[in-house]
Amino acid sequence: MSVVKLEECREQIRTELDNVVDFWLKYSHDTVHGGFFTCIGRDGKVYDELKYVWLQGRQVWMYCRLYRTMDRFRKPEILEAAKAGGAFLRKFARVSSGGSGPWKCAFCLTRDGKAVKIQRTIFSECFYIMAMDELSRVTGDKDMQLEAEQMMQQLIYWVREDSSDLGRPQLSGDVPTNSMAVPMMLLCLVQQLSEGRGQEVVQKYRELGSWCVQQTLQHIQRDGTAILENVSLEGAELPGCQGRLQNPGHALEAGWFLLQFSAERGDEELQRTAIEKFVELPYQYGWDKEHGGLFYFLDVDGHCPTQLEWSMKLWWPHCEALIAFLMAYSQTKRPELLERFSQVYEYIFSHFPDAKSGEWFGYLTQEGKVALDFKGGPFKGFFHVPRCLYMCERILDDLLTNKD
Amino acid sequence: MSVVKLEECREQIRTELDNVVDFWLKYSHDTVHGGFFTCIGRDGKVYDELKYVWLQGRQVWMYCRLYRTMDRFRKPEILEAAKAGGAFLRKFARVSSGGSGPWKCAFCLTRDGKAVKIQRTIFSECFYIMAMDELSRVTGDKDMQLEAEQMMQQLIYWVREDSSDLGRPQLSGDVPTNSMAVPMMLLCLVQQLSEGRGQEVVQKYRELGSWCVQQTLQHIQRDGTAILENVSLEGAELPGCQGRLQNPGHALEAGWFLLQFSAERGDEELQRTAIEKFVELPYQYGWDKEHGGLFYFLDVDGHCPTQLEWSMKLWWPHCEALIAFLMAYSQTKRPELLERFSQVYEYIFSHFPDAKSGEWFGYLTQEGKVALDFKGGPFKGFFHVPRCLYMCERILDDLLTNKD
Repeated sequence: MSVVKLEECREQIRTELDNVVDFWLKYSHDTVHGGFFTCIGRDGKVYDELKYVWLQGRQVWMYCRLYRTMDRFRKPEILEAAKAGGAFLRKFARVSSGGSGPWKCAFCLTRDGKAVKIQRTIFSECFYIMAMDELSRVTGDKDMQLEAEQMMQQLIYWVREDSSDLGRPQLSGDVPTNSMAVPMMLLCLVQQLSEGRGQEVVQKYRELGSWCVQQTLQHIQRDGTAILENVSLEGAELPGCQGRLQNPGHALEAGWFLLQFSAERGDEELQRTAIEKFVELPYQYGWDKEHGGLFYFLDVDGHCPTQLEWSMKLWWPHCEALIAFLMAYSQTKRPELLERFSQVYEYIFSHFPDAKSGEWFGYLTQEGKVALDFKGGPFKGFFHVPRCLYMCERILDDLLTNKD
Repeated sequence: MSVVKLEECREQIRTELDNVVDFWLKYSHDTVHGGFFTCIGRDGKVYDELKYVWLQGRQVWMYCRLYRTMDRFRKPEILEAAKAGGAFLRKFARVSSGGSGPWKCAFCLTRDGKAVKIQRTIFSECFYIMAMDELSRVTGDKDMQLEAEQMMQQLIYWVREDSSDLGRPQLSGDVPTNSMAVPMMLLCLVQQLSEGRGQEVVQKYRELGSWCVQQTLQHIQRDGTAILENVSLEGAELPGCQGRLQNPGHALEAGWFLLQFSAERGDEELQRTAIEKFVELPYQYGWDKEHGGLFYFLDVDGHCPTQLEWSMKLWWPHCEALIAFLMAYSQTKRPELLERFSQVYEYIFSHFPDAKSGEWFGYLTQEGKVALDFKGGPFKGFFHVPRCLYMCERILDDLLTNKD
């Protein structure tokens, strides 16, 4: 891939990021109740007023990150929207779990902020923390930073000490598992909370960061030939479908989290493992040789997964793959990694963007036809697409500035 | 459709039922721990040992129903399998919800009966009741019948009085809804528990049966032009995706439950409503004019549903449609209903049965290609296929015996 081609990619990515930001600025703000509409149809029309908390937190985080780190997004309307989203979250997302238990974050709220559903997991809290920490960096609000760190302590307790407050009944057949989402997400939060903070904060999360990496590496299984989504707490393979499940996009996302971490700590061994096992390997087993694109789920023994959507091509695994290959290339300059970046890039830009109404489709059939045509839904908001474009633009800026 | 063609259908259905029963007799029995394997691959191999309780209950029910009402299935191996499944359920499915609360049924068990998951709904209990009642008819076990009726009382309490023991937190934005699955399933249980029992039992459930019908009819919405899956407790349309959701296969299943009920009570008005609104209407909006087959989910306003599998063609809605059209025809002799039966029949027999290894595929793409190739999974067991073939064979027997 030539420098000229990389310049072209950067230009297309930059234009696409501008367009995607415009789409969400135009269609997603609730100027009456605050917060963001997340169920947005192909042409920008809101088709459901429910507000999904993951997506509220992610949108606040993304707006603030763009505002804080890219000059052309340092605009009052972006800051105001992020503040309004943060205020909505603080006012409505935390729900008492009853009795003397801690606060939980709801999964879904009505337009005016009433809790509709609470998940028995930690992910609403994760995105709440991301939002509060990043917003505190933009506004300088120390209380908000403190709130993020306090909720982080609660999360760590749930994950490492006692999860019973999450509300799942203790059942003798429900063996505790190491699900890759958990250490990955905590690693992401460690990086978020530590970035650019003083040594005190960095030290506070240092051991946790190492623990997250070790827990993530436990998912390398089958003599290093597969990443499995769920393993035992001791890092052994679990029986049945749960144990054999593979999620290539998730592995690729973990890959670039690990690459960032290895760069911060100067850990070359971890860098090699991340590229070999979490970037190249998931691509090898996850790429559809017939129709192109990454499968959503696979079974390591080749059984048919039980998830009905297993063969669909979703936008976000492709976003994660694009970041992972570009970051891996930027750290190593190995040309085959840039070739993979190029392949994923071609698949993405020939399938996901909607030339008619802007933003990206999220859900394609195995063959690459649009299966669901909305731009936002319960799990698709202002996050994976802009984060991918933002990360890639920054890495390309760096590559093209420092080219030799 | 000629009598000769109907004779051919009956012959094919009879052969198919024999083959499907053989498949499950051969591959699904756990002779070590009792109960049934439900995750069975294309060729009959068990790919996961988890035992899903819905499917345990349904298989016991189906075996007993076949044993009790069709001479050719009055075989010791079927009776023994049903008894072993019933014993497994009684021993392991009921899990204390903690404290002084009532028993809940687990959703999923390990191979040796340890609870893995409990749903905060009533459906595991529903299939437990179906199994116990039908098994008690075969074995003459009065205790078992009593147990089924006691659990039914618990269910009625949860649905009509207080659902807090199901374990869902009370949230201000979580408005109670009338979800069609609930009155439909209770109506099915009323018919199951009352059938052929004395007047005392029939009277006991008479008011409940009428209530279930009234609750089901509340789902006729938009001036009679649509069946909506979720409505308010007062029968009004709900906002958003939840309120606009349509599930044509579910409506068709409700259709034949209502037709059975109308025949028992001699209610011609209900029969007309059932055929017009729950049989013909869901077919009109649910049938894919381009590729054939019934969509899984639709949005009444034409928005894209948020369920990733909305456009897939699943086996069970087609099973329900086949029963519904044949029963509607048998009650009215309206030729257009037989035409629809024939159309669904053609789609089913050209898409779902697996000529190589027997049984049916469960999950096709919109275009009709097999998307998941297993024969049994977390939600597909020995139930919809054999129940459909059993019901259709009996109705055809009746039609062809009484032809004039």
